[in-house]
Amino acid sequence: MSSTDSEASARAAITAVAQPGDPVMSGLLAQMPAVEVWAALRARRALPAPPGKDDASRAAHDARMRRWQEAAAGTDPDDLVARAADLGIRLVLPGEPEWPGQLDSLAGRRPVALWVRGTRDLRHCCLRSVAVVGSRAASAYGLHVAGEFAHGLAERGWTVVSGGAYGIDGAAHRGALATGGPTVVVLACGLDTDYPRGHANLFAAAAERGVLVSEHPPGTTPTRHGFLVRNRLIAALTPGTVVVEAGLRSGAASTAKHARELCRMLMAVPGPVTSALSAGCHRLLRDCQAVCVTCVADIIEQVGPIGADLCSDEGTVIGSEELDPLSRRLLEAVPSRSGGGTATIAMGAGVDLDTALRHLGLLAAGGFVERAGGGWRLRRP
Amino acid sequence: MSSTDSEASARAAITAVAQPGDPVMSGLLAQMPAVEVWAALRARRALPAPPGKDDASRAAHDARMRRWQEAAAGTDPDDLVARAADLGIRLVLPGEPEWPGQLDSLAGRRPVALWVRGTRDLRHCCLRSVAVVGSRAASAYGLHVAGEFAHGLAERGWTVVSGGAYGIDGAAHRGALATGGPTVVVLACGLDTDYPRGHANLFAAAAERGVLVSEHPPGTTPTRHGFLVRNRLIAALTPGTVVVEAGLRSGAASTAKHARELCRMLMAVPGPVTSALSAGCHRLLRDCQAVCVTCVADIIEQVGPIGADLCSDEGTVIGSEELDPLSRRLLEAVPSRSGGGTATIAMGAGVDLDTALRHLGLLAAGGFVERAGGGWRLRRP
Repeated sequence: MSSTDSEASARAAITAVAQPGDPVMSGLLAQMPAVEVWAALRARRALPAPPGKDDASRAAHDARMRRWQEAAAGTDPDDLVARAADLGIRLVLPGEPEWPGQLDSLAGRRPVALWVRGTRDLRHCCLRSVAVVGSRAASAYGLHVAGEFAHGLAERGWTVVSGGAYGIDGAAHRGALATGGPTVVVLACGLDTDYPRGHANLFAAAAERGVLVSEHPPGTTPTRHGFLVRNRLIAALTPGTVVVEAGLRSGAASTAKHARELCRMLMAVPGPVTSALSAGCHRLLRDCQAVCVTCVADIIEQVGPIGADLCSDEGTVIGSEELDPLSRRLLEAVPSRSGGGTATIAMGAGVDLDTALRHLGLLAAGGFVERAGGGWRLRRP
Repeated sequence: MSSTDSEASARAAITAVAQPGDPVMSGLLAQMPAVEVWAALRARRALPAPPGKDDASRAAHDARMRRWQEAAAGTDPDDLVARAADLGIRLVLPGEPEWPGQLDSLAGRRPVALWVRGTRDLRHCCLRSVAVVGSRAASAYGLHVAGEFAHGLAERGWTVVSGGAYGIDGAAHRGALATGGPTVVVLACGLDTDYPRGHANLFAAAAERGVLVSEHPPGTTPTRHGFLVRNRLIAALTPGTVVVEAGLRSGAASTAKHARELCRMLMAVPGPVTSALSAGCHRLLRDCQAVCVTCVADIIEQVGPIGADLCSDEGTVIGSEELDPLSRRLLEAVPSRSGGGTATIAMGAGVDLDTALRHLGLLAAGGFVERAGGGWRLRRP
């Protein structure tokens, strides 16, 4: 069995030929291993069509198969994975330790696989997480609120998940990163592509202290459809979505719709009724049972109990016995009451400042420690 | 039977001795005519206590009776009504044509009688009405929104009901009066008292084109308790209350609470989360099922169906056959499509401009006509 036949390579290749969330591909992968689907596409062999469909649907199915077969002919799975690895991009498959189990609620629209880049563990980051989304064309008010909320969430050990756009997305990531906390950037293009260009530094910082995620293999350029499909991932990765600022036709409305459909908490930040940029938020409040949130405490009150479901008895996302030895050493160096400075804790654990900062951030995301003043302290369950 | 014995004089006198909304007085008036209650108070005769109470309650009842008896000794009913009439203040009793029937939902806290000053009919004004309330210490944003909303409501034939305070109350009345429409000012003091002083001109304008209402006889100065008790009237007079801007400890919260208890529509206007003056509105949205309203259409969508219940088949508050002959003549002079100027309509009906304006406002409040451009046109059902 060559490496081309492996499930991972097959799924990697499939991300290059089928649209993310395609229900027909999802149905095929539920019936047979990805290697078989891939082999059939490469050999231009027929694959089973969804049952009980009329002629028009069958024609659409045939057309879809031809598209996939043509794309498959130009795709080399081994080369794809090797190129990604060279770029520091790894593939995460359903069921693997880093796979966020909450994505399974997407059912037939679950990703085939995820491409991930960054120092953090995607699943750990998302266990205590909140999606903070909104318009690209944000106002100074929206940018301020997004940054403040993300900062406060990160300080309390909650990971911010958002897209990579200018406006609210960018302000949210910057607010979270400013605490030294992690952030999860969900992109609608390959992770080797900085889109928009002006966020290249932001993406680099996010990769260093958090993760970038995409359903698309390296080399994929963004499409309008891709952004909308991507939004379901942002909603599904988190127990709740906060729409900070959105016009009536903002893409954030699509994330909100997904959050509702997936039974996640939907929250909206109010703004002046005289601002068109808050009109989408107000519609969510009026017509879509969104909860009105005005501060970080409001948000945690909504998602806290949900995040807690995923936690161990001690209120942490994993038991402390599951921590790696370095993290455990750092945890022991964190004071229980008043906050201890990062440098002091690093010295106590005998590690360098950078390593301490990275692991403390992870411990915060896991619910073990929290920010206190300029330092860290143990989080009380 | 002297006039002192009349029900009206007795109720007028009782408004001078008992606190508005006092449930014991309400219970007494449900058992016996006001003249008998009044006669007993003047003669310092015992009145039946609420049944099945303990010693402490009985002592409180006795104290209350003594307070009422002492106040009654210094009150001359005939003089009270005569003085009020001199000031242009009339008394409206439950069941009279001008009595707003919706006040009956206050049950044991229903007013004993209402003191009314102004050219308009209180009941007619309130049939299609909305309470627009909020903080005295309002922001420029709140004042702008209150004025705009009130103006838009008045233009569409909805009467604005509010208190007489600076801030949101004043902005709402000014917005409504600017359309030439009526407005209802509910005061917590005697209608001969301009409180606050700076609103003397506003109250004069409201009396000229709408009505001032109070449960207190002329000469009563405002008290803090009086404002809170007054708020139940604002909520009860209208099918819905809009809180435009309110801090967490604003009196508007008490009006909102009454609106909810009385099963009226409760609406709140969102604002920036960075403004403490919107914090009360956001709390109503989050915790009290208030509906998020951002424009006049949002408000009418909420109260429209309720207001419509009170309307005739033609969408008017009374049938056109119930109109007085002068109003009917004016109605016939109003064009059906494009707006006709007030002067043209006045000429058509053969009345002076002032009379025309007053009756057209009444016809608008009744749902017969609406503002169009600078003039008036028939309202389509």
